Amino acid sequence: MKKAIVLLSGGLDSSTCLAIAKAAGFSCYALSFSYGQKQSSELVAAEKIAQRLGCQHHQIIDLPIGQLGGSALTDPQIAVPAYTGSEAIPVTYVPARNTIFLSIALGWAEIIEAEAIFLGISAVDYSGYPDCRPEYLAAFQAMANLATKAGVEGSPIRIEAPLIHLSKAQTIALGHSLGLDYGMTVSCYQANLEGLACGVCDSCELRKRGFEQAEVADPTKYATYL
Amino acid sequence: MKKAIVLLSGGLDSSTCLAIAKAAGFSCYALSFSYGQKQSSELVAAEKIAQRLGCQHHQIIDLPIGQLGGSALTDPQIAVPAYTGSEAIPVTYVPARNTIFLSIALGWAEIIEAEAIFLGISAVDYSGYPDCRPEYLAAFQAMANLATKAGVEGSPIRIEAPLIHLSKAQTIALGHSLGLDYGMTVSCYQANLEGLACGVCDSCELRKRGFEQAEVADPTKYATYL
Repeated sequence: MKKAIVLLSGGLDSSTCLAIAKAAGFSCYALSFSYGQKQSSELVAAEKIAQRLGCQHHQIIDLPIGQLGGSALTDPQIAVPAYTGSEAIPVTYVPARNTIFLSIALGWAEIIEAEAIFLGISAVDYSGYPDCRPEYLAAFQAMANLATKAGVEGSPIRIEAPLIHLSKAQTIALGHSLGLDYGMTVSCYQANLEGLACGVCDSCELRKRGFEQAEVADPTKYATYL
Repeated sequence: MKKAIVLLSGGLDSSTCLAIAKAAGFSCYALSFSYGQKQSSELVAAEKIAQRLGCQHHQIIDLPIGQLGGSALTDPQIAVPAYTGSEAIPVTYVPARNTIFLSIALGWAEIIEAEAIFLGISAVDYSGYPDCRPEYLAAFQAMANLATKAGVEGSPIRIEAPLIHLSKAQTIALGHSLGLDYGMTVSCYQANLEGLACGVCDSCELRKRGFEQAEVADPTKYATYL
């Protein structure tokens, strides 16, 4: 059975991505990172989702990049801001995060001889991060083909981003059609320990609108109602 | 003062690279990884070298990629082989290692606003790893330019590999001319806790020949004489 690694944060997009990889017939190896993110409830969600969707294995890697600072998602000195709609790269940007995650996935893919790495980035309803764009992904693929034994030997590991051109609403509609229970997922940048969302950060705002536009009942639980 | 991150394993090449970055006028931030390598004496060497060469900071990141297995350098089930001269990719290859290390360096470079990342790879006297070739490096640079806020905003972080076209002997001659004490460096894939080298692995063999060809006295201390 063909194998895929799926980057799984426990959020809406990566969980949808896992459901897609599973529906495509892959034996899935979920990969999550404990990287100093302020909220750890997404990792709890990731574990439940990996189990519910029948992953072959779920690996959580401790990655102390939070100690390098530089992002509102990891640095206690920087507050997570409320949604503004700005198109500038926000303070929640974690420098080179997708590159770091994909690189470790690439190493693991070589080891277990996986054909593909799935990740849930989207260039439509996203937070303005440079490493969520198609041109970034194409460049990562080109680099990966040269970086690995698999690539050199003619069977490069494919980087698959099935949500890249989908809006949040389209992603939700797709996951919903695959039977994914979005009540298990946590998207909020600062969810509390029980996984309750703040309702005001970028990620909460994009998620909320997605459910509205997809006309799917929103199962998100909020810590406060604003 | 312009800043550079230098990937520092504590071996001959990366230490030479640090000496070059320093000579080029950079304020140097050394970055090492504890990634499950069988021998930890290179990290001890890295600490001493970073201090001796006046690094602004030396960051050691715990990176549990060894638990993914797949390499003789990290997997207790796979022995480090003696030098054979084969051109095939050897079992000491750690899948995607340079990509993972460079990615984390890239994140740190964004945070501290470093201009460059130095790494000591060479495509001449090397062990046949795919991620030591100029075409790999060019692809990583292209990806990095698209991955980062710095790249998007027009001041991409440069990936510098000053040894890429140098033989081991040329590297040694260069470092020697910069006053680097190679007695501090540890290159062996399976050095013991005191940093004594095995004398038989690929890395030992290439190093030994380098000193001979450079006609520089070899300060390497061996655990056994074969």
